[in-house]
Amino acid sequence: MRTMKAAVFVRPGKIILDEKPVPSIGPGDALVKITTTTICGTDIHILRGEYPVEPGRIVGHEPVGVIAELGAGVTGYTVGQRVIVGAITPCGQCDSCLEGHQSQCGGKAVGGWRFGNTIDGCQAEYLRVPFAMANLTPVPDGLTDEQVLMCPDIMSTGFGGAESGNIRIGDTVVVFAQGPIGLCATAGARLQGASQIIVVDSVPERLAMARRLGADVALDYKQVDVVDEILKLTNGRGADVAIEALGTQQTFESGLRSLKPGGTLSSLGVYSGKLSLPLDAFAAGLGDHRIVTTLCPGGKDRMRRLMNIVGSKRVDLEPLVTHRFRLDQIEEAYDLFANQRDGVVKVAITP
Amino acid sequence: MRTMKAAVFVRPGKIILDEKPVPSIGPGDALVKITTTTICGTDIHILRGEYPVEPGRIVGHEPVGVIAELGAGVTGYTVGQRVIVGAITPCGQCDSCLEGHQSQCGGKAVGGWRFGNTIDGCQAEYLRVPFAMANLTPVPDGLTDEQVLMCPDIMSTGFGGAESGNIRIGDTVVVFAQGPIGLCATAGARLQGASQIIVVDSVPERLAMARRLGADVALDYKQVDVVDEILKLTNGRGADVAIEALGTQQTFESGLRSLKPGGTLSSLGVYSGKLSLPLDAFAAGLGDHRIVTTLCPGGKDRMRRLMNIVGSKRVDLEPLVTHRFRLDQIEEAYDLFANQRDGVVKVAITP
Amino acid sequence: MRTMKAAVFVRPGKIILDEKPVPSIGPGDALVKITTTTICGTDIHILRGEYPVEPGRIVGHEPVGVIAELGAGVTGYTVGQRVIVGAITPCGQCDSCLEGHQSQCGGKAVGGWRFGNTIDGCQAEYLRVPFAMANLTPVPDGLTDEQVLMCPDIMSTGFGGAESGNIRIGDTVVVFAQGPIGLCATAGARLQGASQIIVVDSVPERLAMARRLGADVALDYKQVDVVDEILKLTNGRGADVAIEALGTQQTFESGLRSLKPGGTLSSLGVYSGKLSLPLDAFAAGLGDHRIVTTLCPGGKDRMRRLMNIVGSKRVDLEPLVTHRFRLDQIEEAYDLFANQRDGVVKVAITP
Amino acid sequence: MRTMKAAVFVRPGKIILDEKPVPSIGPGDALVKITTTTICGTDIHILRGEYPVEPGRIVGHEPVGVIAELGAGVTGYTVGQRVIVGAITPCGQCDSCLEGHQSQCGGKAVGGWRFGNTIDGCQAEYLRVPFAMANLTPVPDGLTDEQVLMCPDIMSTGFGGAESGNIRIGDTVVVFAQGPIGLCATAGARLQGASQIIVVDSVPERLAMARRLGADVALDYKQVDVVDEILKLTNGRGADVAIEALGTQQTFESGLRSLKPGGTLSSLGVYSGKLSLPLDAFAAGLGDHRIVTTLCPGGKDRMRRLMNIVGSKRVDLEPLVTHRFRLDQIEEAYDLFANQRDGVVKVAITP
Repeated sequence: MRTMKAAVFVRPGKIILDEKPVPSIGPGDALVKITTTTICGTDIHILRGEYPVEPGRIVGHEPVGVIAELGAGVTGYTVGQRVIVGAITPCGQCDSCLEGHQSQCGGKAVGGWRFGNTIDGCQAEYLRVPFAMANLTPVPDGLTDEQVLMCPDIMSTGFGGAESGNIRIGDTVVVFAQGPIGLCATAGARLQGASQIIVVDSVPERLAMARRLGADVALDYKQVDVVDEILKLTNGRGADVAIEALGTQQTFESGLRSLKPGGTLSSLGVYSGKLSLPLDAFAAGLGDHRIVTTLCPGGKDRMRRLMNIVGSKRVDLEPLVTHRFRLDQIEEAYDLFANQRDGVVKVAITP
Repeated sequence: MRTMKAAVFVRPGKIILDEKPVPSIGPGDALVKITTTTICGTDIHILRGEYPVEPGRIVGHEPVGVIAELGAGVTGYTVGQRVIVGAITPCGQCDSCLEGHQSQCGGKAVGGWRFGNTIDGCQAEYLRVPFAMANLTPVPDGLTDEQVLMCPDIMSTGFGGAESGNIRIGDTVVVFAQGPIGLCATAGARLQGASQIIVVDSVPERLAMARRLGADVALDYKQVDVVDEILKLTNGRGADVAIEALGTQQTFESGLRSLKPGGTLSSLGVYSGKLSLPLDAFAAGLGDHRIVTTLCPGGKDRMRRLMNIVGSKRVDLEPLVTHRFRLDQIEEAYDLFANQRDGVVKVAITP
Repeated sequence: MRTMKAAVFVRPGKIILDEKPVPSIGPGDALVKITTTTICGTDIHILRGEYPVEPGRIVGHEPVGVIAELGAGVTGYTVGQRVIVGAITPCGQCDSCLEGHQSQCGGKAVGGWRFGNTIDGCQAEYLRVPFAMANLTPVPDGLTDEQVLMCPDIMSTGFGGAESGNIRIGDTVVVFAQGPIGLCATAGARLQGASQIIVVDSVPERLAMARRLGADVALDYKQVDVVDEILKLTNGRGADVAIEALGTQQTFESGLRSLKPGGTLSSLGVYSGKLSLPLDAFAAGLGDHRIVTTLCPGGKDRMRRLMNIVGSKRVDLEPLVTHRFRLDQIEEAYDLFANQRDGVVKVAITP
Repeated sequence: MRTMKAAVFVRPGKIILDEKPVPSIGPGDALVKITTTTICGTDIHILRGEYPVEPGRIVGHEPVGVIAELGAGVTGYTVGQRVIVGAITPCGQCDSCLEGHQSQCGGKAVGGWRFGNTIDGCQAEYLRVPFAMANLTPVPDGLTDEQVLMCPDIMSTGFGGAESGNIRIGDTVVVFAQGPIGLCATAGARLQGASQIIVVDSVPERLAMARRLGADVALDYKQVDVVDEILKLTNGRGADVAIEALGTQQTFESGLRSLKPGGTLSSLGVYSGKLSLPLDAFAAGLGDHRIVTTLCPGGKDRMRRLMNIVGSKRVDLEPLVTHRFRLDQIEEAYDLFANQRDGVVKVAITP
């Protein structure tokens, strides 16, 4: 049995580099040799035991790689092709997928997020990709691994948050929290035609990066009353769309309060525990609000469109990669990323 | 100065029949002689001091009447015409209206609900209607006052809740709470093609009325675990759309928990205080939920469509009128309605 | 090699009952034993050589049957289960499917309609179903074959035409042509809350059937000027939505001309040749029209919802089955249906 | 009686500078002193008698100016304020406006485009603005007349064409014809996140300007087979969205043929005569196409958003102003613009 190196969840507090069998594949699957991957905030939730996965699980859900093997019935691809795979891997054939909720693939009991969650993930030398035909997306010539590394998750999620907001040309959009996903939401709001993008965070480097990606105004919530400030910046109207990318009481509630009557709150956080929804915030405007929660959308068509955005230079997310590690340094990478040291935004992991 | 009888809010706990001047009208206004009106659950919130209006305010926002006088510049109508006016009276000319959020007319500071709230209402002999051209809607020949009495508010609101849910033909829809608005939401879900309509309440008469208006399954939340039951009835999928028509923690949270991943919660309640939004309910399905709050939409085009529904006998809401009073008996009517005695659903008030 | 009876296209003008091999299936496929099927207007286009299929092709795309065999990798089903399959068989895994255009499965070169078109169809004893997991839909207990026989195509198409129209509660909807698909569009418009449904045809039996399925007004285009009549019936406003179910110059143009400014024309016809689009019809209203063309949507989630509509008795399409034949009488059935004799609407074909 | 200079339509072929009374205003109106305006392609249709207006009509529908007088009942504005007014002037109070079709204000018989069409326009010293409260939009400080001169019509129309296309982030969009409106559609497609924008025209200056405004590929239809080229550029998929900004048979038909199955054709042309809609273009993809026609949307909320786009420097349309004239030179301006001499794109007309 061939083995490979992989980052494995052992127990809360412990993700280690370990030796695991190279995955074997079945009909409809593909085996992808990972050439670059990264660590997500969600992996840190797993590390800390805040999101449960079973011990022994290989983590990671942001793969860039090369097709190493194709299962029976997989056509239209060739071994050796460079591909990415979305963090969410829809089957395309269940009720949820057919209804257009691909990120809910499998329905109530399952959820479409599999890599590093319900099946082994991509912080490893090899990755088994289920439903390969719905998920393998060829990387266009001329794009590097790092250029497309954000597509599988944070770009898809952040842009998804902007898309769920139904931004109109000329709208005012506020984005709460400027971690990697929030930064992508800022870039997404810019791409969709917002004329005024206000971002909220307290880390100066993040606010600076947000400006680089398209923010017009950066608010430090430790310095100003954010809701007041937004109302001032909109002549009392309130924002058309608020995107919150953290999942805390504060971002969620501030998002609602900063909206115009009839506005949309697009929420991207993965929540732990209950939040208190300030329904008096609705009552203030007497209704017509819309709250939309978005989980990272996947599917090869979406990955294709996202890589086209990168290829056409509409947006450049490479600066988000602040640190680089080899797979056998991954414990060190986790340590840096979990503790948010040295201005880390995203890390690139290569074999 | 001509005077008229009117129901007036005096202080929390006290709405009385009083003598008030007949309203004078300005440019763009109309004066309507009220021929039938009714009492809303919101009026009871006002009575109880749970929703603040200023002392001396004439209450009521569900008018059926006859045009008595037209202000300067109002064209296309004639004195003597039978009309209804929506509970919400959009101006049509502010940013909110032009953006399609007519129920948010006036923006952050105002809110489009005026009658019996920020201006005098229709539980009176006469009513001043602002923005008459956007709001006066002729009653089609052959329809009685009682047939169209539900259009201005509960039909518009309840149907609006169904419409906000984006119901598809063949969907499963759950409606929580079967007061007048919830009953209209049930009728609205039926009108939009739901194949399975599940209603939740505990009052037998309401559950019976709900069946009459189109419910397939009626659940008494005091007898069964509603969320469990809904999952069973949908083979574990969850409902496509949940409508909650009460604004309590229980209806809101049960609504969320009964949804399929990717489902929509349409909320119609006017809330007092904070609710706790069970974001772990999202987390269960990992996102893609949509929560929409709807305030009674108004505008003459909508009133026209609602009366067409009545006229074409698609729905018959007259059975909701369980009791009838004259205006000078209105204190008695409030007493009955506020205490929900004698199986009252809606009352009709005539001069 | 086992053989079976099947209706086979030989050349324009000739579809015959022939002996063909029972299909063999591969991974992801299912073999379905047909228990009931029917003939579609499109089959008549094939018969007449107006729509090209290759000689030797087994025709038919409206299957009701029993699972006889499951290919490798097909899970969640059991041999012996009663199922229907949509006329369109999306794979769920190509760009078109993942983008929500399942009826365009395969993209520019292919088109998602396969049965009796690019692969063998269901007017036979057995049918090979590709992409079985996206397409096999269990028939709920208690529903007969004839009750669900319309689901795979005409109900899905006709309802799809109503859905594409974005009908609002209280809208006026006109349906041009009341063949089987137009009749289903009428039923669909009723299901979605139209308050005034006007149908147009010239065959008295069809107009009568349309009234039974929900039409309020039936116009014979040989007797009246249809556009004039619709304007009168809407007080000069024009219809909110027009559905045309024939694909001729007359239905298409009359549809456009009967609309209000800003209305929607939903077109269901399969066209042969060019039509002249009367853009002066747009110019009359100076824009804001929407024309949507809908091809029969498929997918197991949709079939499930349609059968739920049947099961909940919201609509009864069984009366459309006016004649019954055994498979070995299929040439006779074609003769009757192609010539529209004896008031035929739809025929049921059983083994 | 005060008089003013104005450009007046006399008969086909003749628009002259004439002396006319300064308009008097009524309740709800405003009088605006024009500080800058321009000539539209539609004015040339009027000049040529291709679009009928009555003799004596003052033409022009793109006003930038200063409030000179406010009619009774107009609040929220002050004399002396700098404003623009959309080319379309919705009342906000008719059925069409309340339904969200403001550019169809007035319904079947009327149409919301009034200036220089059914009432006097703005190629004059003064302009009467009806429904002032729905239409006067203050110009933000710091923006010049020329910077906002495109907002009332071509920017609103061109962007509207992009918006009607429902462009997704990463889509391929083709824009046919790069006159002023087509150029704005190109800029709008860029603002909405298209990753590949292909433009089609034959005038080198226009193709160059299109690149400057965001086009990635410029095709000269006299040099290449446009549909073939688009299919190549999209690897055979076809474009997601096509926008046609001319209203000719060629642009309309090429638009349809260049689309992916399930794509959207957004049409902005004002048509003269009938076009032949190549329904075999649909048939090729067997349905699911969407054709949307857009007339310049108006309303003060939209003008505000468009000026915000200008103010935030998302787009710079000033280069479109290639020539400048005083009002008393307007006949000369018409001559230049009608004959498309000297690389004219748009002219600025000042008092």
